[in-house]
Amino acid sequence: MNVEFFDDPSGTREEIQAATYRALCEHGYAELTLETIGEEFDKSTSLIYHHYDSKDELLLACLSSMIDQLEASVAYDPEDPSGSIDALCDLLDPDLDRSECQFVSALVELRGQAPHHEGYREQLTRGDDVFETQLIELVQTGVDRGEFDVTDPEQTGKTLCTLLTGVMVRRTTTDNEDWMIDVREEIDAMLGTGK
Amino acid sequence: MNVEFFDDPSGTREEIQAATYRALCEHGYAELTLETIGEEFDKSTSLIYHHYDSKDELLLACLSSMIDQLEASVAYDPEDPSGSIDALCDLLDPDLDRSECQFVSALVELRGQAPHHEGYREQLTRGDDVFETQLIELVQTGVDRGEFDVTDPEQTGKTLCTLLTGVMVRRTTTDNEDWMIDVREEIDAMLGTGK
Repeated sequence: MNVEFFDDPSGTREEIQAATYRALCEHGYAELTLETIGEEFDKSTSLIYHHYDSKDELLLACLSSMIDQLEASVAYDPEDPSGSIDALCDLLDPDLDRSECQFVSALVELRGQAPHHEGYREQLTRGDDVFETQLIELVQTGVDRGEFDVTDPEQTGKTLCTLLTGVMVRRTTTDNEDWMIDVREEIDAMLGTGK
Repeated sequence: MNVEFFDDPSGTREEIQAATYRALCEHGYAELTLETIGEEFDKSTSLIYHHYDSKDELLLACLSSMIDQLEASVAYDPEDPSGSIDALCDLLDPDLDRSECQFVSALVELRGQAPHHEGYREQLTRGDDVFETQLIELVQTGVDRGEFDVTDPEQTGKTLCTLLTGVMVRRTTTDNEDWMIDVREEIDAMLGTGK
């Protein structure tokens, strides 16, 4: 997918979010404190509470920015359905780029908060809707152009969205990688592009 | 799937794990403290530290028991592949039984800790391996009996494992349910049992 997250923050609020993201990548959710965030922030730690009332508010803002950046950066080219699906399937490459691995891990850690937190669920529902809509459109365009052989593009797009969510979670929360090639081939079979 | 988790703990250690599980279901990972666990525990809170050195050790033991109970309770009948897949697809029922919803939520919350915690990853890798092996065997048996029409049972089993992981995460971390029926139908299509 080839993207850098929080690479060029503009303004103090974005710099604080970028520091929060780096601290999340470095230490994980359980160790995320004002202190660990402050260590990643070039300016005075006290500025953080000037801009955000609580760690919770800051983390939600960080999650919202992560979803915005994912939407903008995801390998989604409506003119190239096969290439876009290929690029998304980088998630099934055991040698995924380190910055993307970190991003996926951070997202999975924040997802873990959602069952008990409506604010996280709202943001993740928004991201999920966009991702699903993009996938349905890709499958539909691929079918229209004869690149994919799929009976129900909406059904296949929704399944791909669910499957890729599972991919992100399995790859960051288990040490097993044996399934990745098989899942990649099953996606080709689902799209009718398998050999 | 119709199971009750931590329903009949035997001994103090299991009672403490059951209390931890109830506190996790009630409050979520972020609010999980010795105090909230103690509120769910019938005996003296100080007993908890007599049996577990740290909250971390207790949570890992709780996760390990959750995975054991899931393995024992999962609707896995090697003699009935179609029925077993149907039962697993209860995860795609918006009206899933409350105790199972709670279990899935608790598991997703603990999964969120795994990217930065090797102990969680070890337990989840163990659970993942068992679940994947069961699914591959179910698909293989279904093919052998002519119930499923699948070219590569291992590939399909691994994909089902990944897809159902995605199902558990999507249903507990977003408010969108529109995809569930479509994913259920795509699973039928993958297994060659669709209409």
